[in-house]
Amino acid sequence: MAKEKEMEQVDRILAAKEDDYGGVTVDMTNEPLEPSVFASLLRASLSHWRQQGKRGVWIKLPIELVTLIEPAVKEGFYYHHAEPKYVMLVSWLPGTANTIPANATHRVGIGAFVLNERNEVLVVQEKSGRFRGTGVWKFPTGVVDEGEDICDAAVREVKEETGVDAKFIEILAFRQSHKSFFDKSDLFFVCMLQPLSFDIQKQDAEIEAAEWMPFEQYAAQPFVQGHDLLKYIADICSAKMEGRYTGFSSVPTVTSFSAKNTYLYMNTSVRTAGGNDP
Amino acid sequence: MAKEKEMEQVDRILAAKEDDYGGVTVDMTNEPLEPSVFASLLRASLSHWRQQGKRGVWIKLPIELVTLIEPAVKEGFYYHHAEPKYVMLVSWLPGTANTIPANATHRVGIGAFVLNERNEVLVVQEKSGRFRGTGVWKFPTGVVDEGEDICDAAVREVKEETGVDAKFIEILAFRQSHKSFFDKSDLFFVCMLQPLSFDIQKQDAEIEAAEWMPFEQYAAQPFVQGHDLLKYIADICSAKMEGRYTGFSSVPTVTSFSAKNTYLYMNTSVRTAGGNDP
Repeated sequence: MAKEKEMEQVDRILAAKEDDYGGVTVDMTNEPLEPSVFASLLRASLSHWRQQGKRGVWIKLPIELVTLIEPAVKEGFYYHHAEPKYVMLVSWLPGTANTIPANATHRVGIGAFVLNERNEVLVVQEKSGRFRGTGVWKFPTGVVDEGEDICDAAVREVKEETGVDAKFIEILAFRQSHKSFFDKSDLFFVCMLQPLSFDIQKQDAEIEAAEWMPFEQYAAQPFVQGHDLLKYIADICSAKMEGRYTGFSSVPTVTSFSAKNTYLYMNTSVRTAGGNDP
Repeated sequence: MAKEKEMEQVDRILAAKEDDYGGVTVDMTNEPLEPSVFASLLRASLSHWRQQGKRGVWIKLPIELVTLIEPAVKEGFYYHHAEPKYVMLVSWLPGTANTIPANATHRVGIGAFVLNERNEVLVVQEKSGRFRGTGVWKFPTGVVDEGEDICDAAVREVKEETGVDAKFIEILAFRQSHKSFFDKSDLFFVCMLQPLSFDIQKQDAEIEAAEWMPFEQYAAQPFVQGHDLLKYIADICSAKMEGRYTGFSSVPTVTSFSAKNTYLYMNTSVRTAGGNDP
């Protein structure tokens, strides 16, 4: 009886969704199978998809079905990416060159230049990481979450680390670096924010100290002056304070490519007939 | 005898490298083990690391050791990320909130605005993807590879798709969008390039057609005029052509954080005493 049921399943193929690139995706979430049953189904399915001329075959396996990774790898699948609760496997069926798109390649971070009307900048000392115990005062920084806009991330990190409410003004500059974390690349955006509140409530878990500091005092730190990148950034901030620098503002755009509005970051001084400042 | 050997191994712990955040990393590359032996070693190791107060424990498993994923997941590990040839597992030992950094979140792409001295722009029609068969002429576009600088990626894509040599000038604007590919976010940089050669040798695999087209003709396409984002980008390019727009140039910086030079992208007109154009 159990044998019969297995035979019956072998005749079936795995349920798959077609994609726009001639491939199929199998989502195994909530479909527990014995590894041997899965292996048989997968072989039958691959044979079917090959006949149909399918190209990339994707299999999403939730972590609960960890035992199904091995049979898939035996059939020629390899890892495309993984997130905490699943691994995505892929196999390219044609004999032609593989056009499977690469996994995400970059992490994105922000540094926030928050300047009050007395030309004081909001700075912090961190409890961990490379600046721990160095006495260096730095801009609040943080990682942009998946799905989060850069401008929102800057506002969120300032609030989390210092309790200060702030409004995003501009991206002043950004840096791209490589091999920053497990061989991934990194994009770091320096954002200018205008504070909307001034009382500091520092976050205890990550932040040793936070304060408003005269900008000159921040920029004069030997660490900033001795560090090529931080010196550039301080110079840009200084130019911005003197009204002779324009970064990129966030402009919401509607696009048919995506369900929600997306931001275009651009120099908006062009709209005001070519002046350098908005 | 086999039993004795296994016992001996259980007394050992897995070789691990300490990191700067109180954690350890185990690289299993080239260390084939039986799943049962690995499971015993892992349990002994976890007990040892807990006593030592270790926090994040990372295990890198090459695809050849796919059978070791299951025992690790049984011990509480989950997926952090995966690349074609390995999966990285992680477990957070303390009872405190997990501070394990997120996986890479963004894919990065470029679009190249290549303008010759006759105000003609280099445009292509693609063989696949959403613009296939639409007759739409678009800028050459492509994905920035892991470890590749944005400015280099723009030059490479133009060369690959059209055979034209070009020099990176500026990033004119960029767009961030979300859920573009397996829930990852996307950063798309519009780069201005100056052509250094003019003969077009289109790439047959991806490109249906490529040509130099009067900029006005490109911008007048109903698809461009009817698309919020493309219209903005065309307006920016137009402003740039008229000398009333400044984007971000690439400035090489030396940083102690990284082995190689990294680029800071910034408005360099600040250096020329505040003028709007370099």
